[in-house]
Amino acid sequence: MSRVYNFSAGPATLPEPVLEQARDELLSWQNCGLSVLEMSHRGEHFSALAEALEADLRELLSVPQDYRILFLQGGATAQFSLIPQNILGDKTKACYVSTGFWSEKAAEYAGCHCQVTVSASSKNEGFRSIPANADWSIDQNAAYLHYTANETINGVEFFSVPDSHGLPLVSDMSSNILTQQIDVARFGLIYAGAQKNMGPAGVTVVIINNELLARARDAKVAPVFNYASQAQHMSLLNTPPTFNWYLTGLVLKWTKSQGGVAAFEQLSAKKSARLYQAIDQSSLYINTISPACRSRMNIPFTLADTALEPNFLAQAEASGLVGLKGHRLAGGLRASLYNAMPVQGVMALIDFMAEFERVH
Amino acid sequence: MSRVYNFSAGPATLPEPVLEQARDELLSWQNCGLSVLEMSHRGEHFSALAEALEADLRELLSVPQDYRILFLQGGATAQFSLIPQNILGDKTKACYVSTGFWSEKAAEYAGCHCQVTVSASSKNEGFRSIPANADWSIDQNAAYLHYTANETINGVEFFSVPDSHGLPLVSDMSSNILTQQIDVARFGLIYAGAQKNMGPAGVTVVIINNELLARARDAKVAPVFNYASQAQHMSLLNTPPTFNWYLTGLVLKWTKSQGGVAAFEQLSAKKSARLYQAIDQSSLYINTISPACRSRMNIPFTLADTALEPNFLAQAEASGLVGLKGHRLAGGLRASLYNAMPVQGVMALIDFMAEFERVH
Repeated sequence: MSRVYNFSAGPATLPEPVLEQARDELLSWQNCGLSVLEMSHRGEHFSALAEALEADLRELLSVPQDYRILFLQGGATAQFSLIPQNILGDKTKACYVSTGFWSEKAAEYAGCHCQVTVSASSKNEGFRSIPANADWSIDQNAAYLHYTANETINGVEFFSVPDSHGLPLVSDMSSNILTQQIDVARFGLIYAGAQKNMGPAGVTVVIINNELLARARDAKVAPVFNYASQAQHMSLLNTPPTFNWYLTGLVLKWTKSQGGVAAFEQLSAKKSARLYQAIDQSSLYINTISPACRSRMNIPFTLADTALEPNFLAQAEASGLVGLKGHRLAGGLRASLYNAMPVQGVMALIDFMAEFERVH
Repeated sequence: MSRVYNFSAGPATLPEPVLEQARDELLSWQNCGLSVLEMSHRGEHFSALAEALEADLRELLSVPQDYRILFLQGGATAQFSLIPQNILGDKTKACYVSTGFWSEKAAEYAGCHCQVTVSASSKNEGFRSIPANADWSIDQNAAYLHYTANETINGVEFFSVPDSHGLPLVSDMSSNILTQQIDVARFGLIYAGAQKNMGPAGVTVVIINNELLARARDAKVAPVFNYASQAQHMSLLNTPPTFNWYLTGLVLKWTKSQGGVAAFEQLSAKKSARLYQAIDQSSLYINTISPACRSRMNIPFTLADTALEPNFLAQAEASGLVGLKGHRLAGGLRASLYNAMPVQGVMALIDFMAEFERVH
């Protein structure tokens, strides 16, 4: 069998060298006689892996020393609830910017714990653009301002860090972390599920500054869900998903070996530009997102003749191009171009699309 | 390199055939061209894995049809907080039985959400026995009664299901699930982290009856943490740790292939009896747990000459016997004999212990 090109939105394709290394040491990590799956999370082997994981992510994102990096469970969805529970401090309100499905979901969850102010929303225009930062209505009494850096379903992405008018900025970077150089110091808290650009499902990264960590210290939330308690225990307050940490560590080492975030920022721009160009030049494929905020990560598109979509998916799969079905809520098609998707995969997709258009 | 015998308390040793299968299909599951790590959790491949996982666990434990099985994140520790948040219903109190470190921790976490009544405790006797069920003080106004079926640090285990005087019974079976035949119908809720007898760290099973699920439906907890919402979505409300589910599924299939829970109940009794016998017959090794409630899973012991312990650990490791260090809070030594630990491993440990005693 040969490997396919996998355009799934997440869990997503992983670098082949990472899978090969995981395979080769699955029964015995570095000849120690046991699998990473079987190691005590308090033992010396795993401690070394955990330290390297933290150090590599800190290096890749140039995380300042007054920020802690946590590795938690539950996905970004768990954080939708845990963020307000941890960092409201003495406030009762939080600001959310709605740019698609995931930012709306984050705001909905926050609503279980505080009063949510929608600072801006592009819902009325079908989430096809991002509201101009200058027009956002920011409540100075809010605990923080939240936005979603990339919307995997709607296909819009932020290309600059918005001005939050002094509020701590909180960003869900699940789907574009490690693909864009960011100034972490502009943020109060960054969070991201690993299963797009960083590793397998089951790991969620939270990068938080000391100011917000101090708020967590006083939060009434059980220690396992408390950012300050987890920070104090180096995210080892309870048994973590050890193998998922290990795989994330392998992906980070691979990311460094390929040139780090700067290299992937360039590569992402190149890969997505080629696919958007192919879509725009065709008369069969359609993407209606405002060009200034088109996502480099997730490219939703439809066929002018939607009846052809099942046929498109079946033929793509037969050609070794899988995971192209759109999200169940959005329909249509979608190609996700995360860091582990090579240029050859994108070119194979573009070639297939051209041939499919020629025939139909 | 050869594999060692790993006596860690969890994450713990896994069946070698499971690791071999995971290795062999790591780059391409059943020749589909992608790893389980890379599959969409909404796709047909993963759906088949998830259905088999649920069906196999239901079969192994004979789970009645009016119980739902959830696969969640966060470990048993997260459930310490989520159980009261979900199933208090209109009550404000819950009963907890203290038999060691983990039951105390569960009660401490519950205290963040409700008033905790300690129905019984063996703390004053150093947790070396389990208080007689007849003496438990059970508050009829409590929402449920909680106990820990096996204490990994203290080495005590329940061998019958206690009478809860009509209260829904909640049990943490993290460390002895699949090693004892149980009548699930006696329980309101059973929960267990997978990383001892069921799979890798990162998966937590919650088995809950319809009565408690109805309480969860009205609970004020974000959907990702709500048992009723997760039940409605077949635990796929958000992206699960897909690879961890898959590995758990492989361990369950292996468990079935070895004769299921009845076979492991016999094997556990045999393995632990041999080790306790070796300890009791020696003058160097000491276990002070009341014989009637000695754990078959986790056997803590000390050396009459405690100064020899570092030497014991070093020589054991050199002999391919690892993970024998006691929990950092308890000190001493500990051998964990979960389902994946073969009789040969236990015999190797007993032989080593005898030789060590002979020399010292």
